[in-house]
Amino acid sequence: MSGKRSLINHHMRQLLDQHSVDEFSQRLQLDTEDLPRALPATAKCTAGRADKLWTRLNAPEAVRETLLDPTTRDQIESYSGNIENCIGSVNVPVGVVGPLRVRGFFAHGDYPVPLATSEAALVASYHRGARLISAAGGARSVLLNQAVTRSPAFAFRDMIEAGRFIAWISEQFDHLCARANATTSHGELLDMSITAEGNHVYLNFEFSTGDASGQNMVTIATQHAFEYILEHSPIAPQEAYVEGNLSGDKKASAQAFTTVRGKKVSAEVIIPADLLEKHVHATPQQLVDYWRMSAVGGVLSGTIGVHGHFANGLAALYIATGQDAACVAESAVGVTRFETTDDGSLYAAVTLPGIMVGTVGGGTGLPSQRACLELMGLSGAGKSGALAEVTGALLLGGEISIIAALAAGHFTRAHRKLAR
Amino acid sequence: MSGKRSLINHHMRQLLDQHSVDEFSQRLQLDTEDLPRALPATAKCTAGRADKLWTRLNAPEAVRETLLDPTTRDQIESYSGNIENCIGSVNVPVGVVGPLRVRGFFAHGDYPVPLATSEAALVASYHRGARLISAAGGARSVLLNQAVTRSPAFAFRDMIEAGRFIAWISEQFDHLCARANATTSHGELLDMSITAEGNHVYLNFEFSTGDASGQNMVTIATQHAFEYILEHSPIAPQEAYVEGNLSGDKKASAQAFTTVRGKKVSAEVIIPADLLEKHVHATPQQLVDYWRMSAVGGVLSGTIGVHGHFANGLAALYIATGQDAACVAESAVGVTRFETTDDGSLYAAVTLPGIMVGTVGGGTGLPSQRACLELMGLSGAGKSGALAEVTGALLLGGEISIIAALAAGHFTRAHRKLAR
Amino acid sequence: MSGKRSLINHHMRQLLDQHSVDEFSQRLQLDTEDLPRALPATAKCTAGRADKLWTRLNAPEAVRETLLDPTTRDQIESYSGNIENCIGSVNVPVGVVGPLRVRGFFAHGDYPVPLATSEAALVASYHRGARLISAAGGARSVLLNQAVTRSPAFAFRDMIEAGRFIAWISEQFDHLCARANATTSHGELLDMSITAEGNHVYLNFEFSTGDASGQNMVTIATQHAFEYILEHSPIAPQEAYVEGNLSGDKKASAQAFTTVRGKKVSAEVIIPADLLEKHVHATPQQLVDYWRMSAVGGVLSGTIGVHGHFANGLAALYIATGQDAACVAESAVGVTRFETTDDGSLYAAVTLPGIMVGTVGGGTGLPSQRACLELMGLSGAGKSGALAEVTGALLLGGEISIIAALAAGHFTRAHRKLAR
Amino acid sequence: MSGKRSLINHHMRQLLDQHSVDEFSQRLQLDTEDLPRALPATAKCTAGRADKLWTRLNAPEAVRETLLDPTTRDQIESYSGNIENCIGSVNVPVGVVGPLRVRGFFAHGDYPVPLATSEAALVASYHRGARLISAAGGARSVLLNQAVTRSPAFAFRDMIEAGRFIAWISEQFDHLCARANATTSHGELLDMSITAEGNHVYLNFEFSTGDASGQNMVTIATQHAFEYILEHSPIAPQEAYVEGNLSGDKKASAQAFTTVRGKKVSAEVIIPADLLEKHVHATPQQLVDYWRMSAVGGVLSGTIGVHGHFANGLAALYIATGQDAACVAESAVGVTRFETTDDGSLYAAVTLPGIMVGTVGGGTGLPSQRACLELMGLSGAGKSGALAEVTGALLLGGEISIIAALAAGHFTRAHRKLAR
Repeated sequence: MSGKRSLINHHMRQLLDQHSVDEFSQRLQLDTEDLPRALPATAKCTAGRADKLWTRLNAPEAVRETLLDPTTRDQIESYSGNIENCIGSVNVPVGVVGPLRVRGFFAHGDYPVPLATSEAALVASYHRGARLISAAGGARSVLLNQAVTRSPAFAFRDMIEAGRFIAWISEQFDHLCARANATTSHGELLDMSITAEGNHVYLNFEFSTGDASGQNMVTIATQHAFEYILEHSPIAPQEAYVEGNLSGDKKASAQAFTTVRGKKVSAEVIIPADLLEKHVHATPQQLVDYWRMSAVGGVLSGTIGVHGHFANGLAALYIATGQDAACVAESAVGVTRFETTDDGSLYAAVTLPGIMVGTVGGGTGLPSQRACLELMGLSGAGKSGALAEVTGALLLGGEISIIAALAAGHFTRAHRKLAR
Repeated sequence: MSGKRSLINHHMRQLLDQHSVDEFSQRLQLDTEDLPRALPATAKCTAGRADKLWTRLNAPEAVRETLLDPTTRDQIESYSGNIENCIGSVNVPVGVVGPLRVRGFFAHGDYPVPLATSEAALVASYHRGARLISAAGGARSVLLNQAVTRSPAFAFRDMIEAGRFIAWISEQFDHLCARANATTSHGELLDMSITAEGNHVYLNFEFSTGDASGQNMVTIATQHAFEYILEHSPIAPQEAYVEGNLSGDKKASAQAFTTVRGKKVSAEVIIPADLLEKHVHATPQQLVDYWRMSAVGGVLSGTIGVHGHFANGLAALYIATGQDAACVAESAVGVTRFETTDDGSLYAAVTLPGIMVGTVGGGTGLPSQRACLELMGLSGAGKSGALAEVTGALLLGGEISIIAALAAGHFTRAHRKLAR
Repeated sequence: MSGKRSLINHHMRQLLDQHSVDEFSQRLQLDTEDLPRALPATAKCTAGRADKLWTRLNAPEAVRETLLDPTTRDQIESYSGNIENCIGSVNVPVGVVGPLRVRGFFAHGDYPVPLATSEAALVASYHRGARLISAAGGARSVLLNQAVTRSPAFAFRDMIEAGRFIAWISEQFDHLCARANATTSHGELLDMSITAEGNHVYLNFEFSTGDASGQNMVTIATQHAFEYILEHSPIAPQEAYVEGNLSGDKKASAQAFTTVRGKKVSAEVIIPADLLEKHVHATPQQLVDYWRMSAVGGVLSGTIGVHGHFANGLAALYIATGQDAACVAESAVGVTRFETTDDGSLYAAVTLPGIMVGTVGGGTGLPSQRACLELMGLSGAGKSGALAEVTGALLLGGEISIIAALAAGHFTRAHRKLAR
Repeated sequence: MSGKRSLINHHMRQLLDQHSVDEFSQRLQLDTEDLPRALPATAKCTAGRADKLWTRLNAPEAVRETLLDPTTRDQIESYSGNIENCIGSVNVPVGVVGPLRVRGFFAHGDYPVPLATSEAALVASYHRGARLISAAGGARSVLLNQAVTRSPAFAFRDMIEAGRFIAWISEQFDHLCARANATTSHGELLDMSITAEGNHVYLNFEFSTGDASGQNMVTIATQHAFEYILEHSPIAPQEAYVEGNLSGDKKASAQAFTTVRGKKVSAEVIIPADLLEKHVHATPQQLVDYWRMSAVGGVLSGTIGVHGHFANGLAALYIATGQDAACVAESAVGVTRFETTDDGSLYAAVTLPGIMVGTVGGGTGLPSQRACLELMGLSGAGKSGALAEVTGALLLGGEISIIAALAAGHFTRAHRKLAR
């Protein structure tokens, strides 16, 4: 009768073996009984306010002492403007890799790279990749494009009104720039695209953001341009929103992948066969064979782009340097490619269209995060291009390291165990 | 003559205005001159080893003191096994939201939720959402499925050999379980699927992982099953890899979205119109109108699933509680849906098929991260299901909060400014 | 000031150069003035009814005579059940390629393949590919899986009700089979999966469909199972639909790509270098180099899977043999892969998870379409597996032919023109 | 022990129940024994050449007479240039729907629309939708953009060479236009974009194509521009291809979805509640409820865009009017959206960014295909914009018709059967 399987998954089966549906239904009832008071909302960070929150939290003293340790107490006031309802901090371990030699439009040097993570082997693997790249003369890494987007959205009665709006807005770019650019001395409205879907119109504003990652900057600038539109449009929209979810903010998207979000970087390295053999005990062909099979594997799993594990290096670098860690979602997209060259070396390249890094603003001014940037020599104004290029080179090293491990360590062309 | 634009982007244009192509070509030359020695690789974390690394780094004393502050010096040995080349830690500010009332299969209570971030407004926005959910009687949040995958890959000479392998492997599940399950007392090989592509065969092993996030656990277990295959397969593969990049590890993928990766959670809440008005000054219909337009916006931008900003809450909770922050890339995928109910209330739901959380293992044992789990009462064995359900409820609150802000704050059905 | 471009596209610019916005707004007004009567709906196909429709259409006599030519007049009654409001037929030219040698589970022989198209060069290109495959000893092509899906959808008040429904439905598979299978002697309900999204539940029924493509069969079978659910569910859904758009019907989808829709086929061929050189004047390495670059190109453009032009062969074969040509949308998805073998030959494979073909039912019984199936020896019961395998082999030939043309004809490693 | 299922699918299980692996392996052996001669390749279409091919095919006389019927014999010479190896034609039944009232930039009238299909109910369903649209005063349908792309690709030694090439090519647009535009008096190179991925560079040429669908036109024009590049580039590429698979040709792609491929059309209609009730026995709210659930269903299945069944109408119209039916793969992508208006009417819109239609060239000049265009009054130069707009309106009607059928016929808010 063919393999009929249980129609619900293993997990649900286990649950239903233990409890009846009625029991679960009872457990899932919502109610407002004995609802505790909400914690007070507080924007300013001080040890005093943190202590007040802890009083309400009723947690063991040791928990408080761990999150609100003396170092945190000392620096907590510097957190204001970066967090609300502050009760302390978590210590995320930092390891260092490199020095990583990078040659780019902006980066030019040997960079120690701090990575904050709690995942074993991550730092060791990136360190292996960074050493190999440096030994090969460094990675070429270039910032190809940069822009951060916001996408106001407008709903109209019908396509006639939407069309009138489009005809009008397409002549307003100078006015929109005037409004948007007045809000910041660092960023600039560069371009705008228009997407029509029936009676809906989405605009996509593209901004330069100086050395900041820039999401807040572009939100504020867009808000002002948006208000200009509401004030002056000859057609009143039925609905209008400052962000219509077309910007790829905080999620992997095909649109950002095919254009840019934040900083687009491409990095490459050419590694002679003997150097590769010495460092990772594998041949270029082994790495290329694995790359091909894993690239098709990525395609088969339906990813946006194909790569190995960009997110590992991105998350660790973002946390160490005070970037917005949520942007790992939109940044961990791109293409890794391995080939052999005519002379038998390994050619490896990564391309990431959505790196979101800055060297000013956001978390980059927090004490330990700024220290990490200073360790790289990349703190403050004028450094974000180099940081993006170092990020590209770092991720290239990470891809080489993991692909070498998978291709060589477990490879079986020699059929040692199977040949019989 | 139509709007011909500059054929390269604004960024490249600026660069080429400043430097010639030859200058850039020169700057991008690779070389191994004056290459500094690589930093020594070290697995164990001690203050002494950190000091040695700092000596090599040649950084300002203040930088060292900030990353290797007294608290970190005290606890650095506890980092061993979580990081290599350790030089200290970064302090990531922690704010608390809630208490958040959750009703699930596992979670049942009022949870204060610690969020680690450096992004202004994030905690305040989630706090607003959590307060609203609790005031409505809580969020229903259920763990629908759980499994972590690994995907060994095998290349054969042709489809005949691949077919023989498939016929063989499909009878080996008990043996594979025996090998895999012997490596852990917490996880279990639950299922295996087979994907054929020409002469390539990918297996997808699905594991339960107990209360750990489990990526290391399943890698080790898969390695043992993989070795069984290499030892016993009647057909020797041309190539064999323990991971063929079909598992969705560390990236958004359609495959994980349509199945499960880690923990699949769905959470919902029903909010009466008056309560919504009181908390966020908006009507259910306003939120639903915005949801629809932003859902189509997400579709137009080519995301996997449609949602607002899952990554914000995920990253902040992952960092606070010692989860693998790189998994934000695979977790920030899912569906947010808003409707009005027959009685005019707001119905809101989120579904995330790839939440990667554990309450043991990984970074969950680090001092401050464990403290965050303890603050929620969710540290240690037996708590991961509840943590996943709290995560779902938290993200639901975040979606409501941001959608309310966008729908109400800037909404214009009243045409205040435009009505004339 | 950087390259600001026109904010609307070339097309809209041209339009607005010619007409004012007001003129366009006027032109787009809707109205019901002078609305002509709707054409009468008619299911039965006869020359008489066609003539009546033509009378209403008021078209030139030559137009009628061309669509309702003597051959069509003779056979028009045989169209009943395949079309409504019939006014004649179009003649789509048919070319033949091959014979194509195929070795599969079902197909085993040398097949002439009829292709209906109006696109120049299509038949010639597939013929070149088919000749090359046959000269190499044929293509191995195997039917790996088959199932056609339908996805009823149910909305409940909340997740408690949805959960009760899931617990119930997961025990009803035998009953669902009984109802569904009673509607057909050819198909069978094989499996069912359950997707929960908040208070929504989608079922995915998977059917075998015998030798029919089977979409009507599974719709009818699902309707009966659906009615069983509505009659017996202990929980009344708020909304219930026989199809919830989760089945991948008539569109490319990741879900079908990662599973199966219709028939999943993989086909491969190994072509010695000298044979390749003789037929297409290119080396295996040239084809592999192009494959790699075009595969990354496909990834960069955001396709589901990566391939060259499956749709060309699919559309032409579907039209020739009376398949549902709309299914080209869901079928033209898959993976093409080229490699070199250890002895320097070309290895080429295609994998398509969504081939929708039958040899009975639908348009396969129309006179000229059945003739095309008979030409291949694949008309009627027991032949659909072979037809699917021949389709896979045909598309493999098409990929080889176009890749060879692109790789060899225009390749430039020799730098003939550029070398200086 | 939980529901372990058979590890291979039902289909493979059945096969292995019937035959051993060895039997299958034997059956899949390739060989060149008794290989029949390849059919002769012939470009010109005449009855004589067709008869010669039939002689070689050795098919029953009735098969030949059906495909090479007297009408086909009469017109076969007109097929030259549209097909090779011609042996006759298939008759695809044509039904007519409408008249469909369309108000667009180009289309303005009541159009009978011929649809060629062998699928029962398709014409009836589109006719129902067309009638409803016309009764509501027609569909507004506008051509928003148009461009057909080709994407030459170039591989360089490293990113320095790639960068030099980019700097050069970005100054060559006028030269590229001169070469490309010299090949055609109908099309024009409008724009070019540049995609860098490591040492690879893809160009995307965008062309207007007059009233032709234009794929051949842009291929020829691109070939000439490509040759200009090879002749004049200061950097010799390692590899160069006239098409790098980035153009979205013949497959659904995110890139085309987020931009345009062929013709981008948006169409809308507003239907009063009473008219909807009269025609399809459903309320606007019922349709909107179904739309929302099916839109999420589409998202859950991982489609590009969300819609119902664009492919049905596209394939039928493409076949009837001599378009390239393979383009259904790239065209069946877009967004369908249903809402209720403030006065309780239904608002429905469709947006398709990739309609590939022409009124000259390709199959549009074949006798019966031209007759279909003439029936609509849309044959020849100056008509392609109107044809695209009619296509949009037709598909809008198809979406309304099927959504009404699913929402109303089987809807259960009234709980008739379940209410007890």
